[in-house]
Amino acid sequence: MIDATLELGYALDTFYFLMCTALVMFMACGFAMLESGLVRSRNTVEILTKNALLYAIACLVFLVVGYNVMYPSEAISSVIPGLQFMLGEDHTLADISAGEGAPYYSGMADFIFQAVFAAATMSIVSGAIAERMKLWPFLVFAVVMVAVIYPVEGYWKWGGGFLDGMGFQDFAGSVVVHMAGAAAALAAVILVGPRKGRYGAKGEVRAIPGANLPIAMLGMFILWMGWFGFNGGSMLKVASLDDANAVARIFVNTNSAAAAGMVVAALVSRAMFGKTDMTMIINGALAGLVSITAEPLLPSAGLAVLIGAVGGALVVMSVVGLDRLKLDDPVGAISVHGTAGIWGILAVLFSNPEATLSVQLIGTVVIFAWMFGASFAVLWVIRAVVGLRVSEQEELEGMDLHECGMLAYPEFVAASAQETGTSGPGRRSAAAGGGVMAEQKGA
Amino acid sequence: MIDATLELGYALDTFYFLMCTALVMFMACGFAMLESGLVRSRNTVEILTKNALLYAIACLVFLVVGYNVMYPSEAISSVIPGLQFMLGEDHTLADISAGEGAPYYSGMADFIFQAVFAAATMSIVSGAIAERMKLWPFLVFAVVMVAVIYPVEGYWKWGGGFLDGMGFQDFAGSVVVHMAGAAAALAAVILVGPRKGRYGAKGEVRAIPGANLPIAMLGMFILWMGWFGFNGGSMLKVASLDDANAVARIFVNTNSAAAAGMVVAALVSRAMFGKTDMTMIINGALAGLVSITAEPLLPSAGLAVLIGAVGGALVVMSVVGLDRLKLDDPVGAISVHGTAGIWGILAVLFSNPEATLSVQLIGTVVIFAWMFGASFAVLWVIRAVVGLRVSEQEELEGMDLHECGMLAYPEFVAASAQETGTSGPGRRSAAAGGGVMAEQKGA
Amino acid sequence: MIDATLELGYALDTFYFLMCTALVMFMACGFAMLESGLVRSRNTVEILTKNALLYAIACLVFLVVGYNVMYPSEAISSVIPGLQFMLGEDHTLADISAGEGAPYYSGMADFIFQAVFAAATMSIVSGAIAERMKLWPFLVFAVVMVAVIYPVEGYWKWGGGFLDGMGFQDFAGSVVVHMAGAAAALAAVILVGPRKGRYGAKGEVRAIPGANLPIAMLGMFILWMGWFGFNGGSMLKVASLDDANAVARIFVNTNSAAAAGMVVAALVSRAMFGKTDMTMIINGALAGLVSITAEPLLPSAGLAVLIGAVGGALVVMSVVGLDRLKLDDPVGAISVHGTAGIWGILAVLFSNPEATLSVQLIGTVVIFAWMFGASFAVLWVIRAVVGLRVSEQEELEGMDLHECGMLAYPEFVAASAQETGTSGPGRRSAAAGGGVMAEQKGA
Repeated sequence: MIDATLELGYALDTFYFLMCTALVMFMACGFAMLESGLVRSRNTVEILTKNALLYAIACLVFLVVGYNVMYPSEAISSVIPGLQFMLGEDHTLADISAGEGAPYYSGMADFIFQAVFAAATMSIVSGAIAERMKLWPFLVFAVVMVAVIYPVEGYWKWGGGFLDGMGFQDFAGSVVVHMAGAAAALAAVILVGPRKGRYGAKGEVRAIPGANLPIAMLGMFILWMGWFGFNGGSMLKVASLDDANAVARIFVNTNSAAAAGMVVAALVSRAMFGKTDMTMIINGALAGLVSITAEPLLPSAGLAVLIGAVGGALVVMSVVGLDRLKLDDPVGAISVHGTAGIWGILAVLFSNPEATLSVQLIGTVVIFAWMFGASFAVLWVIRAVVGLRVSEQEELEGMDLHECGMLAYPEFVAASAQETGTSGPGRRSAAAGGGVMAEQKGA
Repeated sequence: MIDATLELGYALDTFYFLMCTALVMFMACGFAMLESGLVRSRNTVEILTKNALLYAIACLVFLVVGYNVMYPSEAISSVIPGLQFMLGEDHTLADISAGEGAPYYSGMADFIFQAVFAAATMSIVSGAIAERMKLWPFLVFAVVMVAVIYPVEGYWKWGGGFLDGMGFQDFAGSVVVHMAGAAAALAAVILVGPRKGRYGAKGEVRAIPGANLPIAMLGMFILWMGWFGFNGGSMLKVASLDDANAVARIFVNTNSAAAAGMVVAALVSRAMFGKTDMTMIINGALAGLVSITAEPLLPSAGLAVLIGAVGGALVVMSVVGLDRLKLDDPVGAISVHGTAGIWGILAVLFSNPEATLSVQLIGTVVIFAWMFGASFAVLWVIRAVVGLRVSEQEELEGMDLHECGMLAYPEFVAASAQETGTSGPGRRSAAAGGGVMAEQKGA
Repeated sequence: MIDATLELGYALDTFYFLMCTALVMFMACGFAMLESGLVRSRNTVEILTKNALLYAIACLVFLVVGYNVMYPSEAISSVIPGLQFMLGEDHTLADISAGEGAPYYSGMADFIFQAVFAAATMSIVSGAIAERMKLWPFLVFAVVMVAVIYPVEGYWKWGGGFLDGMGFQDFAGSVVVHMAGAAAALAAVILVGPRKGRYGAKGEVRAIPGANLPIAMLGMFILWMGWFGFNGGSMLKVASLDDANAVARIFVNTNSAAAAGMVVAALVSRAMFGKTDMTMIINGALAGLVSITAEPLLPSAGLAVLIGAVGGALVVMSVVGLDRLKLDDPVGAISVHGTAGIWGILAVLFSNPEATLSVQLIGTVVIFAWMFGASFAVLWVIRAVVGLRVSEQEELEGMDLHECGMLAYPEFVAASAQETGTSGPGRRSAAAGGGVMAEQKGA
């Protein structure tokens, strides 16, 4: 009898975990849509390709190495994780009947849920370096990032390492995932430099409008929905009254913080610029989501609204501020995930009595230093060996033709591109095909 | 032992509710895609902004006020609801063990499921007034709508008010949500007037084609999928044999009605216009969904097909008929949600023996009168104070530049817009940036 | 007491089935986005209309006939299924308490899960014949396909027919769904012929670039997410430790195979063409998914990676090879679903000891012969009676105007289309409206 309800609980927790996984997996699509909507048409295929391949690579690398680094069965120390390779057997009925501390969901489900988190971390980077970083060097960095850089700091908190031991509190990853990704993105942005023409000689910032705003908005909605899985799944279980109530509360707080972040960003952008800036409301919603991610369970709904609202205001300031520093981040990824991530980790103090300001700060600084430093070093080596940035001509003509051999919108852009003087790619597309197979000859 | 299965049931019901919530939340994205695909490019950013902000505002306002109006712990009368503010504590093990009438899912889950319904009601309005109603007055209306107007009639039926007492039958909201939204939309359409150039001097209707039909179709599919959560979640529970069978049946009937509505709309449009009108098949599917929403449980699958089919035919007639009346509804929202909603509430009579024609009519008329009247009054006041409609020049040049300071497709439209004489926005975009931050200067 | 856990298990299995159904239903949207992104703008509305209507028709026809053919309560023989019409009553508490062999999920849930599979099979065909096959003859074929052709071979394996009796192993349909759809698509491609201008006089292949690659990528992600439901749901149950572990393992293997297929296709395309071809990485991911579909449960994650990787390589070769044979498949559907489907059914041998090479081959050949032969015959008759292919002028000017009376992107394509000499449709759109209701006159 006990076994029947034990098994049902295990099955329900596993199924809940898998549904949350599907939602977080779909966030890869959200990032792809968001980023491809916010870049120019000539770099759209390339950013889509980056997003798709980084997801695939992240899943494979996390399977072979990263997961075992992040959750070692036997860690070497509280700073250095252990290492294994590939997944083992799943839990048995004997395992789950062992009482206190027994597993209550499939280990395979745990792996894939963690894998899609690793991919999300990497997705943050792709947006920040859009429109100028080469495809394959980026993917090489993705391999190192998901194999080692991210899992090591993930181990420090979620794998039972020293930050967890110190009492660092980060429920679903405002810092462990989001600020971590933003720190890597910052290193990449510094090393790769701003897009041509983004900053004028007198320090003025020139807008480089995205080519397709509806799909950017689509991306935001997909990310928002996916966040229910991201935060809701981080409860790790649902199959009891307390856990079910907790997951429901996480849904409410996640949604409330996102809504507040969006509304505040709309008001701030309207006050600052005189217009209701749609890209800012997207950033505001995402910043609200990042802000609540460190602690989506304990706040009341009202507190969640406040936390999200502050995140939405901060992200607008941060986007403006980074441009002052000539740090060119086409989609605002560093502001959304980094600035709001830091705010989120501090906001834990409002509701979680176990959190202390000093430990929250130490954890943030340690993870930032590691992510930024390790990413900078790896990217510096890649730059030295094969280069990070496309040539000036490739940047002018667009990465799509040069990297991917096709155009995102061959019928839409041709004429207007010509008229505005960016002659190459548009015109070529109609004739040369926008497909690398154009040159291919039959038998 | 009892407690173990009781808790598991509570957890399963809560999780099911939350998954349905995620699906209905994603309907906000469906509306955004549908509407932005069916408007002209110059008004695309603005309609996306409206859709995103209305969702955020609806969630916040429903949290603070609306939910408590709709489901008061103590109602003042069967017509006037009570009022509380903010959510309280969730259920305990003692609560759910209380036997008959005990809660069987999280109260937080209930709140967020109801909140996304409120947002859906408001989404119906945004499509109908697209391309000419100002952004912020619309959002002010959204606040009043979700705080008071919608929750009051929601209380009448689902909160235990007088329509529920009379035996009015509306399972998931053909009238309570869909026709209610359409009634508010009708008030707005009357007050705001048709788009410039929509109706000629001799009464002819001029087509104003949508700029991006694939994302309109994307919107339809997202709404269709979301409706599984909308109708399926309205069963409120799944954790028993009867309830699980019921939810499965609702899935089948919802899908069947949508399919039938689409096919019939395709046939009718082909017969009437000589072409298979894609916007009509979208409307037909949505009309099928709205039609079955009042009673998705009791009909056989065959009856669900019939109900949806009639909805699909009615919506084509209704779209044509509204244009005869010079009621300009760019996306057909009033026809899809209003006309099909009324048909749906009457179709309850075919399968639910507790429904009577008189009560179904009374409920429909009462809710229509309230929604139309209250919306008309609020919008009339807003119009008197700040105006509802953008200026003629803003309408000509597009709301995107004026309201949001950016263009949806800055690279696609420039040239062609110039050639067709709508000189302003397209050309300007390439130069002025399509971003409000274009003017921003560095330090 | 037993009943309480029995009911909970039934409810959990049913809910899991319905969530998987929603995911697979959304694959219809994935196919629609993928295909509409990969065709030219002038044929976009038509392919969207085909995809939407085929889904609706498939659901209706499968309800009335197909489901009963595929799962007859009493089969006539192991080759010829029986036939009933419409769904009956769902299971009772007595049914599910009957012990060994008792049903453990709702029959309604089973129906709708099978229905969305039938629709997926038909979706494969629509892509292959894009840009030249008439709309309504295609839909007539869809009726016959979903009523008879697909259910008969489905019965042979999943309905308990002779292939199942022989021990043919196909877990979720690499052959029963995917290669089956590809076989029908091949028959259609042969009968309808290649697009004008696709193959030059000297055998050269001319690229015909898709108009909107971001939505093609969106389609891929939707299909990938949907595949969790497709393969995960094919376990048919989740409510025990073994079943929950199995579903989790299926998620991991499905995701791993897709990731490997994408990465390998990227590497192969880069090696062959010198560019990282985004359409090929889409095909690679989908081929990985198709490859693992025949046996997503038994392989280790490492083996799943290998199976997907081979699928990703094969699909690139297959796309090139089919063009050599002048079989014009605009979206690569035959390669993705057919070539990878055959590879998948053979790869079952690596992990399932019950599979034998001879039976896997026999099953594949029998199903291919039936699907190709029956489809060819039906399409041949339709061609003789009403024709399959649009006129040369309609193909030149685009199917959207002629079949659907509207354009997908009326504001984007006008100018550029003119300049490149395809004068008709683009220019006309601005004037004639891109809407069949343009001609409609008011009262």
